[in-house]
Amino acid sequence: MGNNISINEAVSLLKSMDNVLILCHKNPDGDTIGSGFALKYAFDSIGKRARVACSDEFSDKYSFLVSECEDFTEEYVVAVDVADSALLGDKLAHYGDKVDLCIDHHISNNGYAKNLCLDADCASATQLLYKIIKAMTRVTSKMADCLYTGLCTDSGCFKYSNTSPETLRTAAELIECGADSYKINTIFFDTKSKAQIALESAVLGNLEYFFDGKVAVAKISRELIAELNAQDSDLDGLSSRTRQVEGVEIGITIREQKDGSFKISVRTSFFADASEICKNFGGGGHARAAGCSFIDCDINEAQNRLVDIIGKSFFGE
Amino acid sequence: MGNNISINEAVSLLKSMDNVLILCHKNPDGDTIGSGFALKYAFDSIGKRARVACSDEFSDKYSFLVSECEDFTEEYVVAVDVADSALLGDKLAHYGDKVDLCIDHHISNNGYAKNLCLDADCASATQLLYKIIKAMTRVTSKMADCLYTGLCTDSGCFKYSNTSPETLRTAAELIECGADSYKINTIFFDTKSKAQIALESAVLGNLEYFFDGKVAVAKISRELIAELNAQDSDLDGLSSRTRQVEGVEIGITIREQKDGSFKISVRTSFFADASEICKNFGGGGHARAAGCSFIDCDINEAQNRLVDIIGKSFFGE
Repeated sequence: MGNNISINEAVSLLKSMDNVLILCHKNPDGDTIGSGFALKYAFDSIGKRARVACSDEFSDKYSFLVSECEDFTEEYVVAVDVADSALLGDKLAHYGDKVDLCIDHHISNNGYAKNLCLDADCASATQLLYKIIKAMTRVTSKMADCLYTGLCTDSGCFKYSNTSPETLRTAAELIECGADSYKINTIFFDTKSKAQIALESAVLGNLEYFFDGKVAVAKISRELIAELNAQDSDLDGLSSRTRQVEGVEIGITIREQKDGSFKISVRTSFFADASEICKNFGGGGHARAAGCSFIDCDINEAQNRLVDIIGKSFFGE
Repeated sequence: MGNNISINEAVSLLKSMDNVLILCHKNPDGDTIGSGFALKYAFDSIGKRARVACSDEFSDKYSFLVSECEDFTEEYVVAVDVADSALLGDKLAHYGDKVDLCIDHHISNNGYAKNLCLDADCASATQLLYKIIKAMTRVTSKMADCLYTGLCTDSGCFKYSNTSPETLRTAAELIECGADSYKINTIFFDTKSKAQIALESAVLGNLEYFFDGKVAVAKISRELIAELNAQDSDLDGLSSRTRQVEGVEIGITIREQKDGSFKISVRTSFFADASEICKNFGGGGHARAAGCSFIDCDINEAQNRLVDIIGKSFFGE
């Protein structure tokens, strides 16, 4: 386990670095990408070299945040929004024990980095990173776009229980720094491809319910994705919709990956701890949103395992 | 036209009142109901009598805001979130020229009240009312629930372009006053009945597109509502989904009412002024969200009239 460090210590450490490689987690989302590029632009602004790396490609909708990164031999490694070195993915796995600083908001962070700056009360890693960057340099509109993207995507546009008064005030300040909040909200919360709408209809129309409708399971096979001509990015946001059905406390999405494994997303409404459910299968996350993977079973067996553990944990079965 | 008055003048006027009838607009939404009851509870807290009235019933999901109102002979009349006396509805129409004070955020407000306290930069009437109530009394958690409900429902949970830094800071303060923001967000943005999900699938799967997919029209007949066993409240939120389809600038929902008339909702993304479109047909609202009604035609003719005016206004046809 590395050192837990304060925001001020993180600022000092970052200011002492140059030639920095910034690592995002695999299956990158708005928070890890927004954190990565906000930090890169902050380094740029103080005349330091930095580049962002990820095991997977960034989907097109993040293109307004992303810029070309120059190649150089890294001296320092910083991970953003990466709770576990296993989440770096195959291409970056060799950095797992070489991370000088991790900036994160996951309570499940396992302390793999030499230094960890963690605030689990933040809705996003960018909510924490905003305080760090503000102490390093002037927050430009480009950095504000990156930071706002992480904040709104991880909080469900300020809808989820992780949204605190400070989350909302951070959003207000980022808009004042020049974040184009309406454009970003529209991209992530108000724009759907026709395939995405078709996929939502198919998945939400075929949910399976357990325990008197308190648990809903959505199963998304490669076959369904192919049939609707959907891209993997069309699946974004779908997992949070499983718990929207009236009466559902736990919503589960089982999504078949290209390699035949299953990515599980668990979303809960009020009492069930999603992170605890996923820990049973080597995963983790937050109380209302967590995930895990299965590599050794079929889609029905994946469902059985989840329903079984949920029954034992929450419904006395 | 009545007087335009400041927040301080509105506070003085309200404090001078007793036995106050508070009027909501017909087809009541979270903002008019939240405003009405927040103001009633504010009057209660300073020992004045007030009750809330509306031409239509409040749907069940607002029950946590609503309380029994005692009957008394009113001395003063205040309207909240009511842009035009015609929006009071049949049962309250006789108060149209008797409104002592209107508190509103609609730029289209036609000045029917003797005194108007208007701030069109506010995302909701409750954003403005919060400032007024804060100057009248201590904001309790019950008032904060009412005010937060108006704020989040009118801003699409802080997603729409009417969300300013002040909107977000108001939300932060209301949470600190005790608003149960997560419960309220869940009720209005994360809970759908099975009929609502079926209705969404049916409507979004059958959108008609015009002008290269820049305009999408959803038609909801009584027949469809009956077929899916849906309540009118299952239609809430549907109108904002028409513009979610990638590439759509103007989303139109044509909804057949029980009396055979049509309620039109227009939602726009970036450039088209929804309020201008609806003004052509005697309606109004905001730049990104507005409405109007047709009483003298069938559903296809309603669509033709709208598509025709939009073609002329925006697509040079």
